[in-house]
Amino acid sequence: MGDGRNALARQGAILAARADNRNVPSNRRRPAMKEPVRLSLADVETLCHGILRRHGVSERQAWPITRTIVAAERDGCASHGLYRLFGYIRSVQLGKSDGAAEPVATDVGPAIASVDAARGFAPAAFDLGRPLLVDKARRNGLAALVIRHSHHFSALWAEVEPLAAEDGLAAIAFCPSISWVAPAGGSKPLFGTDPVAFSWPRPGQLPFVFDFATSAVARGEIELRRRAGEPIPEGWALDADGNPTTDPAAGLAGAQLPFGGHKGTALQLMIELLAGAMIEDAMSFEALEMDDGAGAPPLHGELILAFDPAHFGGGSPQNSAARAEALFRRFAEQDGARLPSTRRYAARERTVREGITVPADLYRDLLKLA
Amino acid sequence: MGDGRNALARQGAILAARADNRNVPSNRRRPAMKEPVRLSLADVETLCHGILRRHGVSERQAWPITRTIVAAERDGCASHGLYRLFGYIRSVQLGKSDGAAEPVATDVGPAIASVDAARGFAPAAFDLGRPLLVDKARRNGLAALVIRHSHHFSALWAEVEPLAAEDGLAAIAFCPSISWVAPAGGSKPLFGTDPVAFSWPRPGQLPFVFDFATSAVARGEIELRRRAGEPIPEGWALDADGNPTTDPAAGLAGAQLPFGGHKGTALQLMIELLAGAMIEDAMSFEALEMDDGAGAPPLHGELILAFDPAHFGGGSPQNSAARAEALFRRFAEQDGARLPSTRRYAARERTVREGITVPADLYRDLLKLA
Repeated sequence: MGDGRNALARQGAILAARADNRNVPSNRRRPAMKEPVRLSLADVETLCHGILRRHGVSERQAWPITRTIVAAERDGCASHGLYRLFGYIRSVQLGKSDGAAEPVATDVGPAIASVDAARGFAPAAFDLGRPLLVDKARRNGLAALVIRHSHHFSALWAEVEPLAAEDGLAAIAFCPSISWVAPAGGSKPLFGTDPVAFSWPRPGQLPFVFDFATSAVARGEIELRRRAGEPIPEGWALDADGNPTTDPAAGLAGAQLPFGGHKGTALQLMIELLAGAMIEDAMSFEALEMDDGAGAPPLHGELILAFDPAHFGGGSPQNSAARAEALFRRFAEQDGARLPSTRRYAARERTVREGITVPADLYRDLLKLA
Repeated sequence: MGDGRNALARQGAILAARADNRNVPSNRRRPAMKEPVRLSLADVETLCHGILRRHGVSERQAWPITRTIVAAERDGCASHGLYRLFGYIRSVQLGKSDGAAEPVATDVGPAIASVDAARGFAPAAFDLGRPLLVDKARRNGLAALVIRHSHHFSALWAEVEPLAAEDGLAAIAFCPSISWVAPAGGSKPLFGTDPVAFSWPRPGQLPFVFDFATSAVARGEIELRRRAGEPIPEGWALDADGNPTTDPAAGLAGAQLPFGGHKGTALQLMIELLAGAMIEDAMSFEALEMDDGAGAPPLHGELILAFDPAHFGGGSPQNSAARAEALFRRFAEQDGARLPSTRRYAARERTVREGITVPADLYRDLLKLA
């Protein structure tokens, strides 16, 4: 991403090369492309940034969004990739998000920094708050970054991973989303898919990172089954009457279920309280009401905790990094167990060399936006 | 528990009243009691404290342990109640724990306090660190208490609940335990049952609290099925060859499974890293090795995070407490969903009035200790 500005220069050339596509007003005039399109990560960056800028998103907002979208495509997470551009732009067009918002940071004290995203997107707010968070965590060992009034549409690992990889901190992040998930034993949506992410720095290698929805599955998984005409397993969702269902459409119209039964519900309550009520921003049920049917990225907050392991050690001869590596070695001895993030890192190794492929339909729709 | 010292005075009377039991050297001389014994919570306190003191546990260590044991019996959690006295005393007798340990507190900085439990028990270490934690959280909004080198044998809710109820703070606590749990996809024990607890203060009522093992079930649940000769459900454990089993004995000899599949494993990794590696204390696999077959309460650390919601608010008219209560109201509208801790609180209301009943066998064994 460091060459973000250079990519601007490449943008004209790439878009010009694809002008034949862009000038086609409708796909009736020629056969639709069927073959997936191969793009380098630099191409993705240029395309993404250009589309955002063309639709009134400021430089300040557009670069951080671009970074998260490129990171998602790079890591094989297409669901958080280019596809999300339609949501970002729809949100700006509907006036839900302010594409030119100027986030404002507040230094609350030795352990808390706060950013008001001013109805802009979370990545720019994170970028503004990150240096404060890192400084406080390094100085005092533990610090929180509160993000408020942000439209949240990117994966949390994209925030916690650099805190570990570049700043040497462990980090936890969580946020509400939109009320789609019933509590264990209940039947109506109340919580969001409420993700939680964690990162741990590993000297000389990529950090340990996880990021998962506290619902049984991401909502997109159910949507994919619906499109494919396939049933969903029991335990993913209830229908509108509160009965278990294997029909994805019924599950989308009803309520998703938490992961891990009542323990998942307990964690969802914690996330809604700490990253909603406590920071005086929307919980998932409020985010849904504010969205008012627009289907835009939800407006809510986020809480990030950062830990500098150096402050937590007890002066024992074996430091925290060495101890952690001993745990990872034991983990690696377990055939069949997969460390979270290894799949993303494998994809990254490949895409950095080979680029990514984008489905023809998606690419055509993106070019319409460009 | 505030009347702990008064209870000392009651102790003599109660033990004298039961002298007939204590003077019986073996149950061959008279028929074994069959009827459960009813005790007031004051009786439980006196009995517990007396037993600990008689077995070389210092006042400093004995009162905090007594408080957690009485709280467990009061809340209907017999598995963390009087039964645990045998473990505490066994640990002191084996020389694993120091029953007269003097914990030492260190003020690490504005956001971190640390207590070296000096191989004593966790409750005394928590008591020493708690005022530091509360002061830092109130002053700066966010603070951590690190406990190191403690023998941990009590439930975490007993620590986070008073932080919410008495100090008005939200709190998260977690710790490793003993390696009994395989990672998802793996087959050998690596993680502990690694509990996580959370509390949220509720004005005018008891706090919201949860506390659960990140294994599929607590180890005691499997032990109970084994004693009852009942099978365990699939998903609780693997046998020693790594195959799913419904045989509780095979599961205890093999590996427990995490709750929530790979997401539970991710959380277990986080707990081991933050409350083990980061604080430079034992992870669950190390605690098992240090125990060396003694079966004593494990020696490891604990991490407690405390949040003062007043520092996290955004100055919006609706404060965090009011927002949280709106969430709890919505939750209460869901028929069938149960808020964590309601069962404990219901038991408490009953036992404070009526006392508890103790199985005859357990009571007889306790009197032998007294």
